[in-house]
Amino acid sequence: MTTRFGLLGAGRIGKVHARAITSDANAQLVAVADAFPAAALAVAAQYGCAVRSVDDILAASDIDAVVICTPTDTHADLIEAFARAGKAIFCEKPIDLSLERVKSCLAVVRDTGATLMVGFNRRFDPHFAAVRAEIDAGTIGAVEMVTIISRDPGAPPVEYIARSGGIFRDMTIHDFDMARFMLGEEVATVSAVASVLTDPAIGVAGDYDSVSVMLTTATGKHCTISNSRRATYGYDQRVEVHGALGSVAAENQRPVSVEVATAKGYTRPPLHDFFMTRYTEAYAAEIAAFIAAVRGKAAAAPSGEDGLLALALAEAALKSVDERRAVAVAEVLG
Amino acid sequence: MTTRFGLLGAGRIGKVHARAITSDANAQLVAVADAFPAAALAVAAQYGCAVRSVDDILAASDIDAVVICTPTDTHADLIEAFARAGKAIFCEKPIDLSLERVKSCLAVVRDTGATLMVGFNRRFDPHFAAVRAEIDAGTIGAVEMVTIISRDPGAPPVEYIARSGGIFRDMTIHDFDMARFMLGEEVATVSAVASVLTDPAIGVAGDYDSVSVMLTTATGKHCTISNSRRATYGYDQRVEVHGALGSVAAENQRPVSVEVATAKGYTRPPLHDFFMTRYTEAYAAEIAAFIAAVRGKAAAAPSGEDGLLALALAEAALKSVDERRAVAVAEVLG
Amino acid sequence: MTTRFGLLGAGRIGKVHARAITSDANAQLVAVADAFPAAALAVAAQYGCAVRSVDDILAASDIDAVVICTPTDTHADLIEAFARAGKAIFCEKPIDLSLERVKSCLAVVRDTGATLMVGFNRRFDPHFAAVRAEIDAGTIGAVEMVTIISRDPGAPPVEYIARSGGIFRDMTIHDFDMARFMLGEEVATVSAVASVLTDPAIGVAGDYDSVSVMLTTATGKHCTISNSRRATYGYDQRVEVHGALGSVAAENQRPVSVEVATAKGYTRPPLHDFFMTRYTEAYAAEIAAFIAAVRGKAAAAPSGEDGLLALALAEAALKSVDERRAVAVAEVLG
Amino acid sequence: MTTRFGLLGAGRIGKVHARAITSDANAQLVAVADAFPAAALAVAAQYGCAVRSVDDILAASDIDAVVICTPTDTHADLIEAFARAGKAIFCEKPIDLSLERVKSCLAVVRDTGATLMVGFNRRFDPHFAAVRAEIDAGTIGAVEMVTIISRDPGAPPVEYIARSGGIFRDMTIHDFDMARFMLGEEVATVSAVASVLTDPAIGVAGDYDSVSVMLTTATGKHCTISNSRRATYGYDQRVEVHGALGSVAAENQRPVSVEVATAKGYTRPPLHDFFMTRYTEAYAAEIAAFIAAVRGKAAAAPSGEDGLLALALAEAALKSVDERRAVAVAEVLG
Repeated sequence: MTTRFGLLGAGRIGKVHARAITSDANAQLVAVADAFPAAALAVAAQYGCAVRSVDDILAASDIDAVVICTPTDTHADLIEAFARAGKAIFCEKPIDLSLERVKSCLAVVRDTGATLMVGFNRRFDPHFAAVRAEIDAGTIGAVEMVTIISRDPGAPPVEYIARSGGIFRDMTIHDFDMARFMLGEEVATVSAVASVLTDPAIGVAGDYDSVSVMLTTATGKHCTISNSRRATYGYDQRVEVHGALGSVAAENQRPVSVEVATAKGYTRPPLHDFFMTRYTEAYAAEIAAFIAAVRGKAAAAPSGEDGLLALALAEAALKSVDERRAVAVAEVLG
Repeated sequence: MTTRFGLLGAGRIGKVHARAITSDANAQLVAVADAFPAAALAVAAQYGCAVRSVDDILAASDIDAVVICTPTDTHADLIEAFARAGKAIFCEKPIDLSLERVKSCLAVVRDTGATLMVGFNRRFDPHFAAVRAEIDAGTIGAVEMVTIISRDPGAPPVEYIARSGGIFRDMTIHDFDMARFMLGEEVATVSAVASVLTDPAIGVAGDYDSVSVMLTTATGKHCTISNSRRATYGYDQRVEVHGALGSVAAENQRPVSVEVATAKGYTRPPLHDFFMTRYTEAYAAEIAAFIAAVRGKAAAAPSGEDGLLALALAEAALKSVDERRAVAVAEVLG
Repeated sequence: MTTRFGLLGAGRIGKVHARAITSDANAQLVAVADAFPAAALAVAAQYGCAVRSVDDILAASDIDAVVICTPTDTHADLIEAFARAGKAIFCEKPIDLSLERVKSCLAVVRDTGATLMVGFNRRFDPHFAAVRAEIDAGTIGAVEMVTIISRDPGAPPVEYIARSGGIFRDMTIHDFDMARFMLGEEVATVSAVASVLTDPAIGVAGDYDSVSVMLTTATGKHCTISNSRRATYGYDQRVEVHGALGSVAAENQRPVSVEVATAKGYTRPPLHDFFMTRYTEAYAAEIAAFIAAVRGKAAAAPSGEDGLLALALAEAALKSVDERRAVAVAEVLG
Repeated sequence: MTTRFGLLGAGRIGKVHARAITSDANAQLVAVADAFPAAALAVAAQYGCAVRSVDDILAASDIDAVVICTPTDTHADLIEAFARAGKAIFCEKPIDLSLERVKSCLAVVRDTGATLMVGFNRRFDPHFAAVRAEIDAGTIGAVEMVTIISRDPGAPPVEYIARSGGIFRDMTIHDFDMARFMLGEEVATVSAVASVLTDPAIGVAGDYDSVSVMLTTATGKHCTISNSRRATYGYDQRVEVHGALGSVAAENQRPVSVEVATAKGYTRPPLHDFFMTRYTEAYAAEIAAFIAAVRGKAAAAPSGEDGLLALALAEAALKSVDERRAVAVAEVLG
């Protein structure tokens, strides 16, 4: 049985998901909606689907599932509406920037029994997934310490930063989810420090560009996260997990792997310079996982609760920076 | 203007090309032909094209170009027929196992002025292409010595070997083309040694499984090639070019790049175990290059002459093994 | 002019320094003292020097400098005595486990004008020194974030741990010094978490085996440190510095660098399993630097103040763990 | 029992061996001889040994073994004289540039029963030795194909080349020995090509600077060797052995292993730029092995016959270049 899709939002990430849906033998892209008709028409032309309004997709009997790629402040309302309409929902992260709003949204999802998956695409990166697979296989024994280094080639526009919720909620949130994915145990406390080192304009906008975080779990496992908005050498994305029997690490990725040797030394090219080329395979695997979930072949993960918990860690990190102390996650989760 | 394609042969590699054609915004897959109707129907169903006979494709006014993925012994005849029909032709290597037949076929291509491109896909591998780009950029200065190590995870079935023309014509031929691609100068002499080390059945079938080759050019550049039909650690494909100012090398490729550290040491996964996963990007880039050539945006390369010259090097290598001497390429090219 | 040495302590590390002194064309090992006569005699026999008492070395007119490798609780007294005797002093870290005692000892050093160098050998490791050289050369621009991962192959005996001052004072202290060496700016705050994950006996002894630390400087630079007493894959010692223009990292070291490829993957040997083989070159370079300092060719660094500050960071880390908050270094330095 | 040494030749390599002898607890350097008194005096002063004439060393009752580091054309005569004098002999390679002279020299060694070891130091490099250890451990199964890439940072002075016997006898000879060390079976045929690519003056002196060689054994194993007199990126020394169950490779060595990442990519430093720093450990291990042989703890290897066979491969390679054919080693060995 083919899963029939509606796509909400035909922007950059919407197009990525459109391609993933149409490439999947078990899925069909039926309709696309976007506030900008031209954007919707472009996707419709390329992938041979209809352009419809969100309301029409909501009411459509020929659509089983939606992919929500609209602006963040519409996510929670759309999730609630489509949950009530009985559609399966894939939503780009975050569900909302407010913990309270996320909680009320997830209550609706729970009540309706809707399938909801949140777009933490990095879990589906084959390299990070291979790290997790080694943990699951017992290769490194009990997990003890996770090290995440995550740096972007450059900061987004300051206008974006001003409404993104800040570095912890829009960038570190991926690492918080990765930490939970690798630790295999809930985070108990968050300690964070933050500064503005790459661009004063980021500080003026009320945000940080360089942050370090330490997480602990109830049994004493640790995770450190190091983030910067700027890495001249490309998209720096590393995860390393140290355990009782050994360690496993995912290496950085580059578009081509050649090495040039000259009198100046041995040089390999910079890393990917864009998250969409870095995570090409992850985006495709993520939608495949959602399709499998809709078809009942697997649980929908990361779930709405995963989205909630990652956001709670971001809140706790902010509080830790402000209060210069370790913050218990329970304090922010309520 | 969209290039309209006919696909001849719906086997393993035909399917790869079908996907590449349909993914290209400048191309359309109109029809597929295969001696086995079921194979053609499967491709037609997945990619929404028609099933036709070869003759119908030959006569079709709605087809501009064909991709030939049929058995080797049909290649030369098909090339001639489609060249005469005014279609652009992409043909899997080799054009034929007989140097004479290749020459007569290329004469027809020349006379008809047809566009012909031969499927030496490795030139389009992004890593090997990056090596060549560094040469072209002058990074390593004048090329002096090329080292090619090329080993397959395992030998093909002995029945395949028996009719493949042997290791030099079916496996080393890729490396001969790569050598010419990197040397930037025609090969003048070929010295080769060959033995059966991995499976006596290969020797019984009249072939070798382990070969080493030295090539020289008129100005004294060298290339060494080392081939084995069996590498337990996967598809080992390395090219290194040493020049006056430095060296450039393409590293091996693996499906995921993680590293596990335990008391036994640091372990990375084996390499790709299949040429189709190893060369996924190369196949797509190759068809894109052909489409660009058909649209007049680039020359069709590798050309039929490239196919002829790689086959001539294989002939010379065989002669060198038999006669235990360096063989001038001119001896076999006539 | 040759620097004439007395060696105080003929144990494991004393022997390493004895070899370094005798290998240096500008130095001579005149005498050795040890509470265990057999230990002193062994060094004397191998390197052709005299055995003397500490008091005789203190009074000797043929000795210019001493290397102190005796138990920690004797360091401060010996430094004071030899400073007053006008000898140049190299002392293994730490000067003392008590900040107050270190301060009073350094006051004597200051008053006497003695040359004092403290044995933070890692600054002299060629790989870490090369990292610092790249910073000094401006290759990575202004330093922003330092990442130190430092794991021992195995914990020392629990009896050692019980009197070592604990993981922060005996193990992390090296990383605190490295952090200061790389940050190029004093540490302002310390946040730390600590747990017992590898061996409950360590907890029983009142110590931790797994710690994570975040440091900040006044201008907002960060450093994270991750320590474990146990790494199955060997002596894991990495330093990475991220700056405005790039990043520089020191790779791990292993006794031999070969790689084996089999069906199980690509395997390199484990790392060094002992700090003395890992830091062989560092120990020799450290003594060479001290000799240069005694001969007036360079400043004696790391200095006594460097020893004091590293210990202060250890104190602050302990306080941070206990009080679950960021601790200002000024709080412990007084 | 201590082995008492005479050192013949106090030049660059003589000094290296002097240090190795004096560092070994089982050896003592008694005397040094050199045609230039100043050179001998310098070694004597540094290591506390006597200066004597070669004849005095030959007659000395307090000397058990000699290390011959004199010019090549004196080697064979000295070996014969010291063999007759009952001394154990370590001789730098080559024994002589003439196969006939080597043979007659080895006849004397055989007749006198003298211990003779030839200085193919690379067998003692810990990385290459580890490759061989993996072969011996069966990790890669039966050896099939050996790949040796060996490039010098720069050519020696043309005057040296003119009397060195040429690239095959002075440079490739190390690789011929390495090939035999790794193949574990005698070489049956040699095919070689050679050209002048780096410096025309080398051609004027009658030599080549760029050579490629293929070796085969009776059972069909192969080895390829690629040599250049010039590598801008340092001393390029790689050995890789491919076998039935896998492959093992020794990586290149550099003075420090750091990596810098900037917008231009990831850069590691060039390799060692001098054979004495590249092979520091190998020289020490080589003398240790000789001392063990003199003390009856091990066979003296590489032996005089190993020296003969490597030279024979060089002769065969030259013949192959000249006659453009595979040359059987038996043709030159007679």
